[in-house]
Amino acid sequence: MAHVAIIGSGIIGRSWAIVAARAGLHARLVIRRAEARADVAKAILAAVENATPITPTVVVDEVMKRITFVATPEEAATGAGYVFEAIREDVDEKAALFRVLEGIAPKDAILASSTSSFGASRFASDLQTRSRILVAHPLAPPHLIPATEIVPAPFTALETVETTFELMRALGQKPLLVRREQPGFVMNRMQGALLLEMMRVVEEGLMEPEDVDSIIRDGFGLRWAFLGPFAGIDLNAPGGIADYLKRYGFMFEDLARERGMKTPAVTPSVVAELHEALRAHHPLSEHSNRLAQRDRLMARLRALRRDEGAH
Amino acid sequence: MAHVAIIGSGIIGRSWAIVAARAGLHARLVIRRAEARADVAKAILAAVENATPITPTVVVDEVMKRITFVATPEEAATGAGYVFEAIREDVDEKAALFRVLEGIAPKDAILASSTSSFGASRFASDLQTRSRILVAHPLAPPHLIPATEIVPAPFTALETVETTFELMRALGQKPLLVRREQPGFVMNRMQGALLLEMMRVVEEGLMEPEDVDSIIRDGFGLRWAFLGPFAGIDLNAPGGIADYLKRYGFMFEDLARERGMKTPAVTPSVVAELHEALRAHHPLSEHSNRLAQRDRLMARLRALRRDEGAH
Repeated sequence: MAHVAIIGSGIIGRSWAIVAARAGLHARLVIRRAEARADVAKAILAAVENATPITPTVVVDEVMKRITFVATPEEAATGAGYVFEAIREDVDEKAALFRVLEGIAPKDAILASSTSSFGASRFASDLQTRSRILVAHPLAPPHLIPATEIVPAPFTALETVETTFELMRALGQKPLLVRREQPGFVMNRMQGALLLEMMRVVEEGLMEPEDVDSIIRDGFGLRWAFLGPFAGIDLNAPGGIADYLKRYGFMFEDLARERGMKTPAVTPSVVAELHEALRAHHPLSEHSNRLAQRDRLMARLRALRRDEGAH
Repeated sequence: MAHVAIIGSGIIGRSWAIVAARAGLHARLVIRRAEARADVAKAILAAVENATPITPTVVVDEVMKRITFVATPEEAATGAGYVFEAIREDVDEKAALFRVLEGIAPKDAILASSTSSFGASRFASDLQTRSRILVAHPLAPPHLIPATEIVPAPFTALETVETTFELMRALGQKPLLVRREQPGFVMNRMQGALLLEMMRVVEEGLMEPEDVDSIIRDGFGLRWAFLGPFAGIDLNAPGGIADYLKRYGFMFEDLARERGMKTPAVTPSVVAELHEALRAHHPLSEHSNRLAQRDRLMARLRALRRDEGAH
């Protein structure tokens, strides 16, 4: 592929450059102020070095050589095979930038925004080549965290989505399709729901903030480092997730009711969909092997934390 | 300390036996059916072996020797220094068991229930020695997951709480104080809030269940394996958590409002308490070191997952 253009040299932009360069692609990163280049280069080098356990065969120097600094979006996007926008969260600035980009980037280059806030409809609706525009929202920093939600606008072409999925996988990322645009997408709703509940516990004076954090860090987080929460409860009942929700669904209903949320929360259709999804990936016959693997992994994670002096 | 008595040989009871024996204490585990002993012993041995990375200097055989099987609660509790109840979630059965235990266990032995559902008020209110009773609710299995919520009833003596904290720390667990009894305590509210939101996303047809799991497993979970969510957002703004909530608090308000929850969710008092708690542990001057440590740990976790074939 031709080089990847990255507009914005903050945490996300720099990290996208590492993701691309580590996978063998050339990256052109826009740094408007020439005097900032040395600091950005230093930060990128440190980040690449810290990340070597992920790709131990990759040579740091070669990664660094594949990253070029340029002064303007025009220089970055000229001849690019794919464009990542990672400027600040200002819808007008994004609209102006995408207008510039669509005039410069090759016609078959996809333009992807890293925004965490608003869909492409908000800043690309009136562009001529809007079918090649979508949102690819990572968690920071993407060179360490693979989950990336892919949010097409209603006008985004299916081909744009497919090519983005292929690229993300080639880069070692985990693309996750959000089927409809909506504010905040899906990833931030997950963290938001948990943090809201944590703040309620603090507001109610039930527990010290440090201890609330510990519930995740020294509790559920040890499981979730290897298993999603659905897969986690799937292992906590002999008959899997449907069995778990039959036994403990009342806890979720109570919680939803107390919060004024719509009930029932655990509808038959949700249970059926979760059951089907889990069983498609994990037959119940693998249950005990999966539990043993979970436990081995948690033990090794605890050892890692101890070795690094982190709890 | 005299031996630890453990009533119940399910996942939690067996795991408490490992926690105690691994820390050098003798444990008496109740297995009512003699013919079940061989299977329980086998399961415990496998669990101890899988957990060796946590305590590499501990000898498996010695751990196993410190665990004795007995047939009745009476045999277990006689002469015990501390009693863990880990029978099934039936409030009447627990009430009957605690009545038996208080007649047998030495007067200074604390009686702790592993229940995840109801406070000690529900099953120990009318006991003569109720001041030595509380809930110590672990996540399964506690020999791998240290977080344990300690829930005193209104009648529980302060000394009972303090001794339990000391024991838990000596055992390598992380005791977390819940200041008031309430159904479901605190730990399950955290998982419940997240799972409710995940089920909403599935119900709304926004994302495949497997992808929703991936948001945690390949996303936030990589951070939360080392940092609680409060500490996580604390690192995501230059001025720490108060700065983060000033910038992004609107996201939480929007989420709370859409769910019919009480607003404002991010009250000035919560922000002040979180700011104080985080700054007490982590001065802002350590910000960049903490970020670098987080990133090193995430990279090593990714390497661990790859080596074990887990994503």
